[in-house]
Amino acid sequence: MIIDVHGHYTTAPAALGAWRDLQIAGLKDPTKAPKASDLKISDDELRESIETNQLKKMKERGSDLTIFSPRASFMAHHIGDFQTSATWAAICNELCFRVAEMFPEHFVPAAMLPQSPGVDPATCIPELVKCVEQYRNVGLNLNPDPSGGHWTSPPLTDRAWYPIYEKMVEYDVPAMIHVSTSCNGCFHTTGAHYLNADTTAFMQCLTGELFKDFPTLKFLIPHGGGAVPYHWGRFRGLAQELKKPLLDEHLLNNIFFDTCVYHQPGIDLLTKVIPVKNILFASEMIGAVRGIDPETGHYYDDTKRYVEATANLTPEERYMVYEGNARRVFGRLDQQLKAKGL
Amino acid sequence: MIIDVHGHYTTAPAALGAWRDLQIAGLKDPTKAPKASDLKISDDELRESIETNQLKKMKERGSDLTIFSPRASFMAHHIGDFQTSATWAAICNELCFRVAEMFPEHFVPAAMLPQSPGVDPATCIPELVKCVEQYRNVGLNLNPDPSGGHWTSPPLTDRAWYPIYEKMVEYDVPAMIHVSTSCNGCFHTTGAHYLNADTTAFMQCLTGELFKDFPTLKFLIPHGGGAVPYHWGRFRGLAQELKKPLLDEHLLNNIFFDTCVYHQPGIDLLTKVIPVKNILFASEMIGAVRGIDPETGHYYDDTKRYVEATANLTPEERYMVYEGNARRVFGRLDQQLKAKGL
Repeated sequence: MIIDVHGHYTTAPAALGAWRDLQIAGLKDPTKAPKASDLKISDDELRESIETNQLKKMKERGSDLTIFSPRASFMAHHIGDFQTSATWAAICNELCFRVAEMFPEHFVPAAMLPQSPGVDPATCIPELVKCVEQYRNVGLNLNPDPSGGHWTSPPLTDRAWYPIYEKMVEYDVPAMIHVSTSCNGCFHTTGAHYLNADTTAFMQCLTGELFKDFPTLKFLIPHGGGAVPYHWGRFRGLAQELKKPLLDEHLLNNIFFDTCVYHQPGIDLLTKVIPVKNILFASEMIGAVRGIDPETGHYYDDTKRYVEATANLTPEERYMVYEGNARRVFGRLDQQLKAKGL
Repeated sequence: MIIDVHGHYTTAPAALGAWRDLQIAGLKDPTKAPKASDLKISDDELRESIETNQLKKMKERGSDLTIFSPRASFMAHHIGDFQTSATWAAICNELCFRVAEMFPEHFVPAAMLPQSPGVDPATCIPELVKCVEQYRNVGLNLNPDPSGGHWTSPPLTDRAWYPIYEKMVEYDVPAMIHVSTSCNGCFHTTGAHYLNADTTAFMQCLTGELFKDFPTLKFLIPHGGGAVPYHWGRFRGLAQELKKPLLDEHLLNNIFFDTCVYHQPGIDLLTKVIPVKNILFASEMIGAVRGIDPETGHYYDDTKRYVEATANLTPEERYMVYEGNARRVFGRLDQQLKAKGL
């Protein structure tokens, strides 16, 4: 089985974006504010948006199951207040759940949280509880910078985040550390902010001792870990300067990287430098980079081709990247699959 | 000749740091503020700080000439106001000039600028003029985020930066895009902020059209280009989405990467992915990562070993990385070397 651990619902019917536009307009003019129940998306619309997009490409490329969360750039936690995010997260999470119910063999949901800048992360717990207990979510996306590029929250190692971690450990759900749209003109969202956040989150964990407090907490750093594997020597050296244990021991029981790196040399480096047990297959299609690479004639984000082609993985290791590691990291996914006899 | 294009005076005598501490204390209590002339560092002290550190390691490792600028993390443009930075930059630039005068075969100076958050970059020009015209500087360090991790300045493509670019083009001096200490608790200085800034600067240039306005402007992106080469497919794909020309044409006449990547797989990727004409040898020793890699028994920042060992470079290409590209990018360095018959 080939599990893609990083998929977002980037192709939701246009009604979703239109509702969000009204919600944003309602922040200035409350008479425009829509009710959640104003959003109507039929099962047929949902089905078509998936069958003609993600599911079509999964079949073409040969992946079986996608961990599917709301569109990352649409989370936009910096907009409005907690109530804005709470309503929006509930809508987006429900849609992903409906997709997963409709295509149970191909999609399993992960949650966005109703984060809001300056608001206690503990406020996100009711939505997380609902998503895990009622919507059978197996993971969540945690935004280390709900301000959208101003980085006003404390580092992920700060105790302010601990209520979320306690719930994650209790439920055995990992967090993908994923920012949203940048509203800071310095940072292009997918070309700078996403990658910077990946690097930043890793380094926050490196300097801290979070995993001493939460030995079973698991973070997935997307986009191949930002700059981290390319600079693995730098990070090993910084850990040494900071008198931390070797990274294997200090971080690699808790931190994992996905394969959203859109060219062969990048995947070759990732699979050479990072232990195989810490690499999970992912493509983030249909996402930031949707085109066809003129150098290969294939989609940039068809990462399975790179994983297939790399000389660094044995068949057993490729199985770990495709399935084994995902089932170990996403414990609830493994339970769900086992319950189906898979 | 082996030219290291990225060296900072990280080993300046302790009197420099003590003076800076007083300057910072003087911001709160003006009676403590020192005069520039209070700083006394003798030639013997300067000589010893170089001979026992950078020059010793250059001889051990086999590099000949270092482009030498003030310590990056000490620039700390976020402290005080323009006058604070102006006095501090003048002191630091004078020290690097004195080092270069003392060891003319081994060090050539590059300038820090007296940047200050929210202050017009044009205010930096007098210091730049002095450094080029009187101190024979061949390059400068440009901080894209003088706020120190809050990213309050406009992107490098903004016209606010143009006065500096006009002077750079007039003088034929390139800028290394280099941030300083992070005062944002989210970002570790050397483990996150530096790498993020490299990625951010590249993406700012990718989204803009700066090099149409300045076809001969040259930026050196340090630390191996941050996350950029590892994600080269992503950046090629983003350029395609944004309807930009191929990166070769759009950016690679103007943007160059150094080799400050502290392990073999990173240098292998860099030299595989980025055209050789865009790679300049550098180590940033004695800098962020000063230890010995237990996996190799050699210093992490002894990057010459990786450049020597990579299978991706022919002897001719290695010459370009070590010398040829540096002489092309740093035009005034080439002039100085030619004037010496080199």
